[in-house]
Amino acid sequence: MTQILDRVEGPRDLRSLTYEQLDELATEVRQFLVETVDCIGGGGHLASNLGVVELSIALHRLFDSPKDKIIWDVSHQVYVHKILTGRKERMNTIRQFGGLSGFADRNESEHDAFGAGHAGTSISAAVGIAAARDLLGDDFYAIAIIGDGAMTAGMALEAMNHAGHLGTQRLLVVLNDNAMSISPNVGALSRNVNKLRVDPLYRNAKRQIGEFAEHVPLGRQMWQGAKRVKTSFRDLLVPARFWEQFGFEYYGPVDGHNIQELEITLASIKKVEGKPVLLHILTEKGHGIPEAEADPIKSHSGTYWLKKPVSADAPPARPTYSQVFAQATQELIESDPRVVAVTAAMLEGTGLAPVHAKHPDRVFDVGIAEQHAVTFAAGLATQGIRPIAAIYSTFLQRGFDSVVHDVVVQDLPVVFALDRAGFVGDDGKTHQGFIDISFLRCLPNMVVSAPKDETELRDLLFTGIHHDGPFSVRFPRGSGPGAPTDLPMKQLPIGKGEVLREGRDVTLVGFGVSVNECLRAADILAGAGIDAAVINARYAKPLDAELLIRYARSTGGLVTVEENVRAGGFGDAVLEALADACLADRCLANLTMPDAIVDHGPQTMFRQIYQVDAAGIAARVRELLPAHRAAPADASAATVAP
Amino acid sequence: MTQILDRVEGPRDLRSLTYEQLDELATEVRQFLVETVDCIGGGGHLASNLGVVELSIALHRLFDSPKDKIIWDVSHQVYVHKILTGRKERMNTIRQFGGLSGFADRNESEHDAFGAGHAGTSISAAVGIAAARDLLGDDFYAIAIIGDGAMTAGMALEAMNHAGHLGTQRLLVVLNDNAMSISPNVGALSRNVNKLRVDPLYRNAKRQIGEFAEHVPLGRQMWQGAKRVKTSFRDLLVPARFWEQFGFEYYGPVDGHNIQELEITLASIKKVEGKPVLLHILTEKGHGIPEAEADPIKSHSGTYWLKKPVSADAPPARPTYSQVFAQATQELIESDPRVVAVTAAMLEGTGLAPVHAKHPDRVFDVGIAEQHAVTFAAGLATQGIRPIAAIYSTFLQRGFDSVVHDVVVQDLPVVFALDRAGFVGDDGKTHQGFIDISFLRCLPNMVVSAPKDETELRDLLFTGIHHDGPFSVRFPRGSGPGAPTDLPMKQLPIGKGEVLREGRDVTLVGFGVSVNECLRAADILAGAGIDAAVINARYAKPLDAELLIRYARSTGGLVTVEENVRAGGFGDAVLEALADACLADRCLANLTMPDAIVDHGPQTMFRQIYQVDAAGIAARVRELLPAHRAAPADASAATVAP
Repeated sequence: MTQILDRVEGPRDLRSLTYEQLDELATEVRQFLVETVDCIGGGGHLASNLGVVELSIALHRLFDSPKDKIIWDVSHQVYVHKILTGRKERMNTIRQFGGLSGFADRNESEHDAFGAGHAGTSISAAVGIAAARDLLGDDFYAIAIIGDGAMTAGMALEAMNHAGHLGTQRLLVVLNDNAMSISPNVGALSRNVNKLRVDPLYRNAKRQIGEFAEHVPLGRQMWQGAKRVKTSFRDLLVPARFWEQFGFEYYGPVDGHNIQELEITLASIKKVEGKPVLLHILTEKGHGIPEAEADPIKSHSGTYWLKKPVSADAPPARPTYSQVFAQATQELIESDPRVVAVTAAMLEGTGLAPVHAKHPDRVFDVGIAEQHAVTFAAGLATQGIRPIAAIYSTFLQRGFDSVVHDVVVQDLPVVFALDRAGFVGDDGKTHQGFIDISFLRCLPNMVVSAPKDETELRDLLFTGIHHDGPFSVRFPRGSGPGAPTDLPMKQLPIGKGEVLREGRDVTLVGFGVSVNECLRAADILAGAGIDAAVINARYAKPLDAELLIRYARSTGGLVTVEENVRAGGFGDAVLEALADACLADRCLANLTMPDAIVDHGPQTMFRQIYQVDAAGIAARVRELLPAHRAAPADASAATVAP
Repeated sequence: MTQILDRVEGPRDLRSLTYEQLDELATEVRQFLVETVDCIGGGGHLASNLGVVELSIALHRLFDSPKDKIIWDVSHQVYVHKILTGRKERMNTIRQFGGLSGFADRNESEHDAFGAGHAGTSISAAVGIAAARDLLGDDFYAIAIIGDGAMTAGMALEAMNHAGHLGTQRLLVVLNDNAMSISPNVGALSRNVNKLRVDPLYRNAKRQIGEFAEHVPLGRQMWQGAKRVKTSFRDLLVPARFWEQFGFEYYGPVDGHNIQELEITLASIKKVEGKPVLLHILTEKGHGIPEAEADPIKSHSGTYWLKKPVSADAPPARPTYSQVFAQATQELIESDPRVVAVTAAMLEGTGLAPVHAKHPDRVFDVGIAEQHAVTFAAGLATQGIRPIAAIYSTFLQRGFDSVVHDVVVQDLPVVFALDRAGFVGDDGKTHQGFIDISFLRCLPNMVVSAPKDETELRDLLFTGIHHDGPFSVRFPRGSGPGAPTDLPMKQLPIGKGEVLREGRDVTLVGFGVSVNECLRAADILAGAGIDAAVINARYAKPLDAELLIRYARSTGGLVTVEENVRAGGFGDAVLEALADACLADRCLANLTMPDAIVDHGPQTMFRQIYQVDAAGIAARVRELLPAHRAAPADASAATVAP
């Protein structure tokens, strides 16, 4: 039943609808969202999209996209926007390989003014777009929609400060305040807003305004009246002055689920001259769908209530690496008083939520603030604490200078646990973990490690917290091979790899998730008469050069495999070590991620495409070996053998 | 005349002094600072240290370092602290090789609780230290001193938000408000504070409090009285509520040059329980030294008025790379309406100040906000503007995620101009530019270039603004060889290097500043009978693989030279290309920065120590060649020759 939605081919089709029809449209969009998310297997960001149905409709009625630029922060809440801008028919492909992105994407539509995936970038982009507009003598609007969680990201506040300084006109920041980012919000700022939400004085004021608005014709006079009513309360109640300090005109708070109220406010905002505007709206994640409202955290990533229950006969699912990490962290916290964990608004994603619940004083969630997270950890480390900073590979990019300037330069014992290293899957290009080996291996003092399985992840964490300097361990999204997670943790000598399989024709050297692919590739190769040794490198830095040189000499050469780009990655480390031993020609190939932006799709499929799965590795080795088969097993014999 | 200062061996010696003696001490410290800075050749950060003389004295009297942790943001204003904590006798070695660091340094003194060099990290570190303290059951104070410029760095605000959320006790943030960071401040926040500074109402209130304080005995009652007087004004005048929104108790503004007023306030702050405190003090850069007060920007880096005038007979100094960059940027702005420049509080350092003065609408200074700077540039680029983001190599680390997530993933045409790449000199370990090739070369779409001289810097900038994607050019601190800067700029084909000298025994491949060292090394080697070719690579990405492979075959092999670490650097790029051509053994050596933290000292000396100057390169080549001399000129002949 999407009778009204069926008539919306683009934003302009919204203009002729009545408020009654718009409310009906919002209901239809919600139903469509649930069906879409269910159709793609229950994944996708449901709750945040349910929260911005009315806002998306109102923005597309009051502004003229693509002439006006609408920039969604993080942009996992962009589904409604996609539905309204001509992509409704393709929504059943969202987050699927070859289908629509789960985020805003400039390649996908002229209505996606700026892509995103990480939080806190939208205001900077909008200020840049507005500054370009002013240079070019154009007059469109730039609108950034940002959640209250993302607003605490440092760069969002940097951008607010700059916009206020410039006094940029026709720049609107919509603060979409739902009192939670992915999990409940961290921070003093949000606490102030939460106080407001439950304040009866504010609620009364809002009702009065609502009643007032319903009984007079729309227009500027009415708004001015409404605004005056609010002004008298808001100074007591809302952080208006906070934003006014940044040089913004503050409007709000407005009920973000009331299209009419949103439109009245937006119409008024369009008349503001000489300064940027912040519109503060209150919304509810999961709004309009009772199951999602009831548990916005669970419904953040899909329709949990529609998913088929797991059959009692099914084998128990293997724990994810995130779960293994979190369990190990809990054990470390419980056995070593020095250990704490730090996360940047990712208690759920990192698996640490239950650990935090059990040990609230030992697990710090600092909000969307990776830079602060890392330097905070550095501060802890100066006092003898051993912090584990649990940050996705892609998000540690945000904290890079803190890693360098605060941890590495001072050689402090911080353990970096990088989840989602390698292929990230459905989140796609903004979330790939393809460069962390490169940006960490170039740092003095930094240990760079990766486990081949769950047991080794536990052991590397244990090794990390006993190491007197910076230590990183990267692991992939999803589950491992199913190694035991109940063995006592032990230290794995830093800079030492292990031989998993002997062979004479070639040595496959895997790093992290690729080790098991190497083992299976060796099986495949054995079937083709190629006798491959397999080494689990464990450490990209310091590298077990002695072991690798030995196998470079004793086998036909080395083939390295990793889920990181080639430039600066694990393969480069091996190549450097062999070059120093005058054995560089024994590095037969570095199998890596491509030097390209890789879109969303299943990890297994991408491993196949880029030939870093067992079959791909075996195929590459078979291509390589004919050329090298003639080479003798010992390099020292090279100059005398034919 | 440092009679009182001579008696101060450590902070405890300050306790017994009267306020009269303390004022005299402040005068002596100022004189000592000027003499120190003059003694080391007029360098060092003078004005900012003159601004914190009284604050440093008061903090060391009211708090008990090293038990209490005093953390200086950026920490170039740490000279007075060093003088008061037992390092007075070594101050004449500051910023000299082997001498004291120009910044706080944990290796130097137990009084340096946390090192720094970049802005905005101190609050994060202090919150971490305080959290560790609370976990360990200790009760010392953590004090962060941060300038108003650094406070606009996003991570400082992230840390404020987290501290307020935690409600951390015995945490003091001193906001040292001097209305300028290095050059006059950017940002709406500072504008509000500036308004206050000139407001007669505030000035009257302050005088009243001063008079009041002088006529009553010191103590809590007095402070409470004083605070009440201020409270009635400050709500009208000062951004107290801004900081209170973060969950801090706000004190101030206090005259930062009045030791007594500072001490009264600090004594009162020490009694606050249950929340962190922000103390807002007003200081003057250069305070107490008329020449420095008159021009705090010029005296930011030393005693300009004591420097000997350049003799009229002396040859004119060569322009620095910064100046060449700025001049080229101005020409580009004047000849191409699409071009703008973006800097993060570094108008002076990047050389862009005069360009900004001439074209204020085309040069954006966004404040200490590298993340915002880069994403702002990305926003500009989406609209057809061609921004040049002028950010030091070391500071681009702060904007790394913006480079990846906003520029590279979207393949936007932003030109990154990285000054201070390679050895940074006197600023030392927090400012070295040793890793930018590594962290940029791993990114798809990114061009990585470096000029051999001034002319080529101009041409690479010109090439960059005509390239439809991300483009980076790195250049060193200081002056180049003196190539012409008045030629029309031209495009240098992307991915093409140039042969500067033919030779047959070996090929020296330089990147950027190292190219001229390679040329001079070839001269030295010629004297020793070694015939070296020299290639100017220009681009590390895309690499001119065809040219390098040709010279790897036609000469005895390649030796690469660069001022970047090895992991992921230019040498790795060459090694990868040769490995792909089965010529990896023809990469004889990669001469790079060490995998180590490198302290402060002259660039020329470090080039010598790490053997990347002409003499060092020549020496390394002579060591390498005997082993490779026997190798024939063409690799294809290798298997048949004896």
